[in-house]
Amino acid sequence: MKILLIGATGLLGQAVKQELEGEHEIIGAALEGADFNVDMTKPDQIREMFEKIGKVDAVISTAGDAPFVPLEELTPELNDVGIESKLKGQINLVLIGMDYVNDGGSFTLTTGILMDDPIPKGTSSAMTNGAITGFVKSAAIELPRGIRINNVSPNVFSEASKEHRDTFQGFEPVSIEKVALAFRKSVNGKQTGQTYKVY
Amino acid sequence: MKILLIGATGLLGQAVKQELEGEHEIIGAALEGADFNVDMTKPDQIREMFEKIGKVDAVISTAGDAPFVPLEELTPELNDVGIESKLKGQINLVLIGMDYVNDGGSFTLTTGILMDDPIPKGTSSAMTNGAITGFVKSAAIELPRGIRINNVSPNVFSEASKEHRDTFQGFEPVSIEKVALAFRKSVNGKQTGQTYKVY
Repeated sequence: MKILLIGATGLLGQAVKQELEGEHEIIGAALEGADFNVDMTKPDQIREMFEKIGKVDAVISTAGDAPFVPLEELTPELNDVGIESKLKGQINLVLIGMDYVNDGGSFTLTTGILMDDPIPKGTSSAMTNGAITGFVKSAAIELPRGIRINNVSPNVFSEASKEHRDTFQGFEPVSIEKVALAFRKSVNGKQTGQTYKVY
Repeated sequence: MKILLIGATGLLGQAVKQELEGEHEIIGAALEGADFNVDMTKPDQIREMFEKIGKVDAVISTAGDAPFVPLEELTPELNDVGIESKLKGQINLVLIGMDYVNDGGSFTLTTGILMDDPIPKGTSSAMTNGAITGFVKSAAIELPRGIRINNVSPNVFSEASKEHRDTFQGFEPVSIEKVALAFRKSVNGKQTGQTYKVY
């Protein structure tokens, strides 16, 4: 299979690449430093990327940021950062990319544990995770030509920085290799509309 | 209690008003035709509304639209309509409004069954519903001064137009009075972070 991996330079993107590159052709995309540079907050850049790359069998997104601030400091403007990036960025990959995915292909997006198990400062993340989960469940019944869609919802990674892990008090981190397995399940399997929770 | 009800002129807003006006003071807001005219896609108008009304004990939103189109016709631009209105509109009511809610007050937002039980054309709705559900669950643990937040997720209403009900094939409609009861539970109760499913 030919797989387009957006977020290829990140911690998770690299783990997913390692998990799948032995048997699939991976084209990496990221803001910079990958095969393709793309800012997924810009629909025109998403269109341009797919035009250049052409048809693929799978699209994986491990990309997208959301602000991590106390709720009382979360302004509409700051919350827009998460909406433009992790929420709309990932969803627009599907809305624009579905014409470029081969019959029976797949999309796999990334959400996270904070929509189920909230922590201080995590509300913008919880919002984007919820949005993508709802989108995936519904889009799965309407995608054409047997195209599937799932999302992977990971816990905090064992490999994350100590500072990042410390914000998830009492959470048992999961190895990033275990999270990458869920992407294998989505891409190589046949399920659709699923949220693979790696908690 | 003094309650600000955004979406007061809609079918659900009127039912919620009827359910609660016997014991609470309801201030209605809507795009037009209510006590206050507000376009909740505009943060400045939300700020202005709260400045004029002052402190309230509860904020209820029964407002917000999302496009209802087949997934293959859902462009990023069209999807933005739902994001600006039902998603960001309702969330910005909380982000801006929390300073205007009295200690121990509450927010109650509206989502819907389509995030759990998808139908054709419902993906933009499912996305906004998911976003608000995630937001509510997380914001509940961070809201200051004992302020609570819940959301009501209704099935299609028995009182909806036949055309609207017909898009929900095989769904058993619920009476709008039953849905309004869930708003009473949220406002008069003590729970927080909940999604009241009226299916």
